Amino acid sequence: MNEPVLLTPGPLTTSAATKEAMLCDWGSWDSAFNEMTASVCKELTAIVGGEDSHVCIPLQGSGTFAVEAALGTLVPKQSKVLVPNNGAYCQRIVRILGYLGREAVVLEHREDEPADPARIDAALAADPAISHVAQVHCETGTGILNPLAEIAAVVAARGRKLIIDAMSSYGAIPINVREIPFDALVAASGKCLEGVPGMGFVIARSEALEHAGNNSHSLVLDLCDQWRYMQKTGQWRFTPPTHVVAALRKALDQYWQEGGQPARHKRYSENCAALINGMRALGLRTFIDDADQAPIIVTFHAPADEAYDFVEFYRRVRDKGFILYPGKLTAVDTFRVGCIGAIDGEVMDRAVTAVSAALNEMGVIHQNHA
Amino acid sequence: MNEPVLLTPGPLTTSAATKEAMLCDWGSWDSAFNEMTASVCKELTAIVGGEDSHVCIPLQGSGTFAVEAALGTLVPKQSKVLVPNNGAYCQRIVRILGYLGREAVVLEHREDEPADPARIDAALAADPAISHVAQVHCETGTGILNPLAEIAAVVAARGRKLIIDAMSSYGAIPINVREIPFDALVAASGKCLEGVPGMGFVIARSEALEHAGNNSHSLVLDLCDQWRYMQKTGQWRFTPPTHVVAALRKALDQYWQEGGQPARHKRYSENCAALINGMRALGLRTFIDDADQAPIIVTFHAPADEAYDFVEFYRRVRDKGFILYPGKLTAVDTFRVGCIGAIDGEVMDRAVTAVSAALNEMGVIHQNHA
Repeated sequence: MNEPVLLTPGPLTTSAATKEAMLCDWGSWDSAFNEMTASVCKELTAIVGGEDSHVCIPLQGSGTFAVEAALGTLVPKQSKVLVPNNGAYCQRIVRILGYLGREAVVLEHREDEPADPARIDAALAADPAISHVAQVHCETGTGILNPLAEIAAVVAARGRKLIIDAMSSYGAIPINVREIPFDALVAASGKCLEGVPGMGFVIARSEALEHAGNNSHSLVLDLCDQWRYMQKTGQWRFTPPTHVVAALRKALDQYWQEGGQPARHKRYSENCAALINGMRALGLRTFIDDADQAPIIVTFHAPADEAYDFVEFYRRVRDKGFILYPGKLTAVDTFRVGCIGAIDGEVMDRAVTAVSAALNEMGVIHQNHA
Repeated sequence: MNEPVLLTPGPLTTSAATKEAMLCDWGSWDSAFNEMTASVCKELTAIVGGEDSHVCIPLQGSGTFAVEAALGTLVPKQSKVLVPNNGAYCQRIVRILGYLGREAVVLEHREDEPADPARIDAALAADPAISHVAQVHCETGTGILNPLAEIAAVVAARGRKLIIDAMSSYGAIPINVREIPFDALVAASGKCLEGVPGMGFVIARSEALEHAGNNSHSLVLDLCDQWRYMQKTGQWRFTPPTHVVAALRKALDQYWQEGGQPARHKRYSENCAALINGMRALGLRTFIDDADQAPIIVTFHAPADEAYDFVEFYRRVRDKGFILYPGKLTAVDTFRVGCIGAIDGEVMDRAVTAVSAALNEMGVIHQNHA
């Protein structure tokens, strides 16, 4: 096997069956393809229990395209959005709101601190002009899990709307709209569903969508227009990434076969435990407390050893068959390892062995072993 | 072979080698993938002779995402854009400009009439506030070829900037920036390059890009930001459609192997001639005059027979292995047949045979045969 395992949170390692689903060309006007799109959207809505209240609008592009589309479509032009900020993807939301000319109220947190429902509650109480809260569920920049249920309860109690960036949690970490009310949830094909990248989607409350007709700043990112066209014709407005959709269809088949969200959560949790235990045995420290760690991606402190250099470390681990991810923190030297994709605990064990060998080759002395 | 041939202008039928390039997962931070992106962008620029003056900025999503990105990034907020309109994709540009709040001056043409350089010249002379002309090269809605070189000369002589939607012509119909000066040209992976859909790109004049820093209405569609980040890191800003990029890399290898633009133009012209000759022998009439017909997609008048019904016709031709495209005209009943993709004249002959059989089964009497 020459192909390295991707320990990165999307693109990630997909199954052979998922990739083989791309060996066919689909006509975007053809009913076979339209039925595939419809079945995918129906199942994506069902995963969060939204069948009776929500619809799924697929969108070409990466997950961030869908995040911008959700904000641009659902947040009225004069609205204010509260963004609890504890990482890079929260900051990206703030940046998008800047482009959109929507006012962001940023609630700063440390990057190793989960978003605080009490502070969110206080911020909403203090400013009635805030109409929406944009909350990242699992912050992929660090791997921290934010307390979504508690935050959703606070937002609902204050009569505000919740937009969830569930990019790296959707499908693996439980989210049910009957317990976690939201106006929109955003995710993508190439994360915990284990499809290939190229398509995002927004699961939006039908009623919210109906009242959002004139908000969008962009034709291609206008979810109302995308949704109306799809309802009328069964087709995407603009050329869909047909092969990506076919791969997602196949990935969903395997998702159900495995046992859906509970099974995926279990496998990722096992991957994460194998990784953290193995890395700790090498003397490496996690950045996020275990209590707040999502089983999706883990940030490790770089070894405090001058022989360590990420680029060199990355190259050596890659040569052994595993692709790691750089850290996304500015103040602390870290690297990240993903736990998601078509991989299991045995793969994680081999990854730890590769990390160990790379650090030994580099002459990096592990702190606990020094 | 169960898979139907796509006679649609993207998605289209791709080669087995192109699809097989998607059987590998790529890390988006990995240098192997970044080198692939760089080589693709370099070659896309070279195809239009832009090595010394232009850069290629790839963008996630369909071609329309790249069209909106080019308009939003390169047209200043207070500018006016002239849009010669002879079809659906010209109208889409007008619609995008509406979302962007940029004023569009629409120069109406009939749908079977090429954009008129003299009228464009007069419109520019009449309104010095028009800074840009947005010109569709081959209007995929009908298959008409607009006289790009003459239009570019007029735009340059009036000191205005040209943005070309070359979605369905790029790579097959000659365009060289040394003869056809442009600030931006937009195309996509899944058209004449015969890749799979999921990525657009903009070939922009470097100097124009440098002065466009603050125009964009959208983070994800901001080509300046995408370009700066790519220059700095070699990476895409947001998750790239890795498999789509790999397929395009493979498709470009085959493009050069075949002989580049001249060879592709020759094959498509042969496909188009085989199609038109065959369909005329069945009594079917083209919508566009031969002199204005691009060898990309052909619009045919629906048979003037009450036994004809497009949905039924489509289904019967599909059952015989070919996927056609509906017409995109509101006033005239038509259907379209694409000439592009990994297909040759022999495939077109078989398509004509399938069309003939379908019309016979439906009891449609061909006009010339009546």
